Amino acid sequence: MTSAETTLRGKISGAGRIDFATSPEEYRHWQLDVDGSVARLTMRVQEDAPLHRPTEGGAGYELKLNSYDLGVDIELYDAVQRLRFEHPEVGAVVVTSGHDRVFCAGANIRMLAQADHALKVNFCKFTNETRNGIEDASEHSGQHYICAINGPAAGGGYELALACEHIVLIDDGSSTVALPELPLLAVLPGTGGLTRLVDKRRVRRDHADFLCTASEGVRGSRAVEWRLVGEIAPRARFEDAVAERAAAMASEGERPDAGEGIVLGALTREFIDSGVSYEYVSVDIDRELGASFFDVRGPDGPPPQDAEGMRAEGDRFWPLALARELDDAILHLRTNEGDVGTWVFRTKGNPDSVEAYDQLLLENGEHWLAREITLYLKRTLKRLDVSSRSLVALVEPGSCFAGTLLELALAADRCYMLDGVLEDDQEPAAVRLTGMNFGPLPMVNGWTRAEGRFLNIDELQEHIGRDLDAEAASELGLVTFIPDDIDWEDEVRLALEERASFSPDALTGMEANLRFGGPETLESKIFGRLSAWQNWIFQRPNASGSQGALQAYGTGARAEFDRRRA
Amino acid sequence: MTSAETTLRGKISGAGRIDFATSPEEYRHWQLDVDGSVARLTMRVQEDAPLHRPTEGGAGYELKLNSYDLGVDIELYDAVQRLRFEHPEVGAVVVTSGHDRVFCAGANIRMLAQADHALKVNFCKFTNETRNGIEDASEHSGQHYICAINGPAAGGGYELALACEHIVLIDDGSSTVALPELPLLAVLPGTGGLTRLVDKRRVRRDHADFLCTASEGVRGSRAVEWRLVGEIAPRARFEDAVAERAAAMASEGERPDAGEGIVLGALTREFIDSGVSYEYVSVDIDRELGASFFDVRGPDGPPPQDAEGMRAEGDRFWPLALARELDDAILHLRTNEGDVGTWVFRTKGNPDSVEAYDQLLLENGEHWLAREITLYLKRTLKRLDVSSRSLVALVEPGSCFAGTLLELALAADRCYMLDGVLEDDQEPAAVRLTGMNFGPLPMVNGWTRAEGRFLNIDELQEHIGRDLDAEAASELGLVTFIPDDIDWEDEVRLALEERASFSPDALTGMEANLRFGGPETLESKIFGRLSAWQNWIFQRPNASGSQGALQAYGTGARAEFDRRRA
Repeated sequence: MTSAETTLRGKISGAGRIDFATSPEEYRHWQLDVDGSVARLTMRVQEDAPLHRPTEGGAGYELKLNSYDLGVDIELYDAVQRLRFEHPEVGAVVVTSGHDRVFCAGANIRMLAQADHALKVNFCKFTNETRNGIEDASEHSGQHYICAINGPAAGGGYELALACEHIVLIDDGSSTVALPELPLLAVLPGTGGLTRLVDKRRVRRDHADFLCTASEGVRGSRAVEWRLVGEIAPRARFEDAVAERAAAMASEGERPDAGEGIVLGALTREFIDSGVSYEYVSVDIDRELGASFFDVRGPDGPPPQDAEGMRAEGDRFWPLALARELDDAILHLRTNEGDVGTWVFRTKGNPDSVEAYDQLLLENGEHWLAREITLYLKRTLKRLDVSSRSLVALVEPGSCFAGTLLELALAADRCYMLDGVLEDDQEPAAVRLTGMNFGPLPMVNGWTRAEGRFLNIDELQEHIGRDLDAEAASELGLVTFIPDDIDWEDEVRLALEERASFSPDALTGMEANLRFGGPETLESKIFGRLSAWQNWIFQRPNASGSQGALQAYGTGARAEFDRRRA
Repeated sequence: MTSAETTLRGKISGAGRIDFATSPEEYRHWQLDVDGSVARLTMRVQEDAPLHRPTEGGAGYELKLNSYDLGVDIELYDAVQRLRFEHPEVGAVVVTSGHDRVFCAGANIRMLAQADHALKVNFCKFTNETRNGIEDASEHSGQHYICAINGPAAGGGYELALACEHIVLIDDGSSTVALPELPLLAVLPGTGGLTRLVDKRRVRRDHADFLCTASEGVRGSRAVEWRLVGEIAPRARFEDAVAERAAAMASEGERPDAGEGIVLGALTREFIDSGVSYEYVSVDIDRELGASFFDVRGPDGPPPQDAEGMRAEGDRFWPLALARELDDAILHLRTNEGDVGTWVFRTKGNPDSVEAYDQLLLENGEHWLAREITLYLKRTLKRLDVSSRSLVALVEPGSCFAGTLLELALAADRCYMLDGVLEDDQEPAAVRLTGMNFGPLPMVNGWTRAEGRFLNIDELQEHIGRDLDAEAASELGLVTFIPDDIDWEDEVRLALEERASFSPDALTGMEANLRFGGPETLESKIFGRLSAWQNWIFQRPNASGSQGALQAYGTGARAEFDRRRA
């Protein structure tokens, strides 16, 4: 281990907090240009603007050779999001480097070497989510990503390319695609690389094996033959080849001619020591209990009449505001509040209104904005599923666990629903299914959350739109336990206290295994299999020990390995 | 970590070696009784016969409460194997405990607490393979396993039950099924438990979550309602209920009325410091190179004329002898030679003979013994796939990589084939496809090894039975590189030296991800996802540190946890 003084724990801003909110005007590492139906995302990482600035104590690092840290990736995430909402006219996005003769050297090694285990794991998870989001845009929004590799692409640099639909590699005799993590750093290409090679690009596994052990990488025609890239082009033809491909992909896109997009304005939020609050989401942290209480408020009234009304509301439209606020809150808590292991979800509001908003989105599924909002809700709920936190839902009188918000309860590891009332003037709680529970918001494995619980889907569908009391919800399997008013408080408190007493690591491993029964997809393999192996390796002395490869890299010293296979 | 003096490294016999060969006469912990079509496997673990005996230094442990270590599981593995070959008449196997009021307390905790990381990981892998073998017998051999839980079944005890097709739990008011690993030990139910709950038994994941945090377990009708067991029976009815179920399952089995089985005699083998040799397999270890060279010899002549001839040869029949020898060698090297990270496969013999043996097995697929031998070859090759070793195949003149033996090359991470000859009197090497390459020997994910390389199966099938030279084999994707005689020696040596220079952990993680593209199954999830998380947790201070839960268990002290979620 590095000494405590030089270990990055990821708390670095003035307020001791990594902030995931940004906008193009604030970017330091990326440039977003839109020209008609083609956008260009240019990576020009500022060496002297890392998230963790060098200090006298020796911590910190410089972002050489277009290498990235979480700060660089936060900007990329923001750009990918904005392209979908603010630029619906874009059908192709070219990702390239603004530096001469280097595409991207991947995640910054000194950053990784200094980061503690939790920061490494969290960094990789967010990076994976952003790359999965790029694929989601290609697949579902008709925004096709093309990677223009105009110089060496190594490690995370090539993994970024692998997340794009098409890869053009410059054929200049020296530019290669490479995954040198194993030979140079004793870790894996863990940001989807291994999985995307064999499961997405169907690269033969012996070729993948060779690539992953050859630190110099593969270039030219072999890269095409081995399916590592889609095409190569000499320097003189490179820009034209990329432009032609982008134009072709932009025109084939199903992206509707949607005219102008909407603006994603700055989030209204307030951080306080005990949590964070937005317009519809507030999070209250009970540090002693190790739990964050998410209070989610339903919409204030009925939805707009139609898609045009939805569009006029822009980022104030409740489902979009909800997605943005939840997304930001999840990222904040995951990164900045690692000691708080349980997230408890409660809702308040009118289930009729929630159902009406769901209905509006479902009825306008063909409208680009309704589709984008639904996809964003999907991605946000997926982010919740893969968060290494215990998820608990509490269904109480006055709540509105309907449709989209019911997904929070179905995402939970356990759901408690009060059978009855706590005060005389209350109506007992009910939960309600809508069409949103039956397809538009799948988990990373492609199943709906109801399917993931092995519920009888045919039977459930007969109950769409009905108020289901505790008894009925329990019968259908939508909730776990239904204590009455006498037991409610004790049972919930004991469950939360008990959860806080368990090993956080064992909980993380258990939840990662129980949450995703059923089929596996590229995404679920990346979060389940690949990440688990990378997390394992991130702890091994051969990688992270004081004589390990991450520490040795760049010092001229050779890493010393314990040769024993486990 | 425990101090070096008290850490088990798994080398314990007189010769410093764990031996996987045993027979019923030698069992100390299990009793195998066969009565017509029903067999009974009774677990009666001898407390004072652990694999690692207590020493004055404080290491060692006692096997209380029918808890098990690797030694117990080696006997179970042997019994499951023998039932298939020696007792084809058996259609149902009852697994139960011979101790009063305790079924099985799972893996021995003191053993786990003392074991070093590699021993823990290897122990779990073998235990998983044995349980998968039980399911293989139920599914493919008509030997249906019934677990008769006649007392508390905790942790690995309940996981053993989960591997059986049917579970009967005694309903005595106190016997429970429990997975207390997380609350008591801060590790996972990692021997398939989590995966089998949700993916095999389709237990609702919130119920599974509750079970895995409730150290006291679940009993009686709730266990049935939650699908944790198949049925319950009161003490007075218990034996009858089990016997009735066993009789019913034995009679519904597709197990042919095969008459007498064959005897699995003692293996002829010789261990020397530089390896081990059997009749058809010999392993030569080059410790400096960190490589084991497997030399596999093809059959000495043509196969017997028919199934009766095969049966007459018994355990001397080449494919069966091959499977047994390879199986034993793999287990030996995996467990006792952890520092040797690369396994190199070579073959020698007549490909015509190998093809003829394959043909005999394929043509007699309905014969119980041919089927058992093919299934055993399948399991042995699967064991190879999931071994944490780099696999390399070398195809040279005089080799016989045909059909079943070609699977060794297709299992390899890389295959080198000499294009030409090294000496004038040689014939160039050829590889040959047979029907065995197209279905009977799938990997853990259900794909054939050729499919796993994304080869064109239709095209491959046109080449069945033909000698394919280096050029042709390379063209079809069956081999990775085809150096000529000038480059051969250097290229192979450099590849092996390079492999030995890499971090063993990173190689293990890479290979686990690249080898299994495509679909996932219960088995591949257990080896890929669940095991990776368990391996991660096995390294976390919360479990394995000096204040961790494994050390604290039984001492009265509470484990101290770092609460940070990763």
